[in-house]
Amino acid sequence: MFPGGLLLILDPDGFPGLELSKTAERALAAGARAVQLRSKRFSRRALYAEALEIRKLTRLRGAVFLVNDYVDLALAVEADGVHLGQSDLPLSVARRLIGPGDILGASARTPEEALAAAREGANYLGVGAIYPTTSKAEARVVGLEGLRAVRDAVELPIMAIGGITPERVPDVIEAGADGVAVLSAVLGAPRLEEAVERFLAAIRMAEQSRSKTRS
Amino acid sequence: MFPGGLLLILDPDGFPGLELSKTAERALAAGARAVQLRSKRFSRRALYAEALEIRKLTRLRGAVFLVNDYVDLALAVEADGVHLGQSDLPLSVARRLIGPGDILGASARTPEEALAAAREGANYLGVGAIYPTTSKAEARVVGLEGLRAVRDAVELPIMAIGGITPERVPDVIEAGADGVAVLSAVLGAPRLEEAVERFLAAIRMAEQSRSKTRS
Repeated sequence: MFPGGLLLILDPDGFPGLELSKTAERALAAGARAVQLRSKRFSRRALYAEALEIRKLTRLRGAVFLVNDYVDLALAVEADGVHLGQSDLPLSVARRLIGPGDILGASARTPEEALAAAREGANYLGVGAIYPTTSKAEARVVGLEGLRAVRDAVELPIMAIGGITPERVPDVIEAGADGVAVLSAVLGAPRLEEAVERFLAAIRMAEQSRSKTRS
Repeated sequence: MFPGGLLLILDPDGFPGLELSKTAERALAAGARAVQLRSKRFSRRALYAEALEIRKLTRLRGAVFLVNDYVDLALAVEADGVHLGQSDLPLSVARRLIGPGDILGASARTPEEALAAAREGANYLGVGAIYPTTSKAEARVVGLEGLRAVRDAVELPIMAIGGITPERVPDVIEAGADGVAVLSAVLGAPRLEEAVERFLAAIRMAEQSRSKTRS
């Protein structure tokens, strides 16, 4: 179910030599239900070839496939949606291009950005960095407090991102996230499948514990 | 008339501080009939704002507006078309996204690339660098011979690019170009309007001289 759960971000920039479609396949086989393709450095031509493969694999598994930044690439491979940052095309413009049915995700660090994204038609928010992270060293850390502030401001589903490990999942879900987006903790893990399974188990447990608290 | 004539490429990467829409307006007022927006460094958000302005100005003047690289940006501002390089989205994919009526330009350095572009639906070719150029220092020089080789291989209109000055226009047109794309020779000129006018006059004369030779 997406948004929610685990979103694996396939980002070759920080993991040179990463075999994108093979990694996607392994993660999906281990239970991941959503992947996002992200690269600032790859050429669009190279990303297109990768995206086509990942689209096939995610379709076979009934998993969600999102493309970061590039609306044209998302359209070209019939991805399920795009994720945009604050310096990408405006969300309202992207919504017009992808149509009403596709998923539109937006990075938001503050309640103001979150409210703007909600107004412009985002379906979910990516909020982070929750913790310091090596895979996007320049990302400002908003912490669990920043996550709570966004949670209080909007109804939109939130995917938390940045330095999240399976051990940290309970705190992140408790602070209001509906799911977590990960890179290093899975892509850099000694055993990718195990890392995926540990995240999925941690998310499931945190969700159960949260719904008990709320009921 | 485009393809053909003069294509002014607005590229802020090589000309820091360049006021894009103001420059477009001055060039259009001086007679330019086609402009292309190109930047590898600007954020898509920033380019979108510039592209909207340039779209307004070109529409007012009945001039052609092309966007380099970014098919989504071209769609978003209803540009007249896109220009793609060898590392961008495949031409056939771009054609599918922009539809049959919009202009699709493709960079081609060799007869092979030119033939492939023709097969994939390009409306014109950008061929260069004809001469060494400062605005794209890494561009390989194909020279007038490279231009002739492409000219002999395909029927598509050719816009020659790279180090072209008004003085060099006759040679370039004689070698088979239908028009010239310029950056530095206009953007870096002491008086932009005069540079545009000199190019337009040189192209007009070279075309007349070519049609005399041919008839």
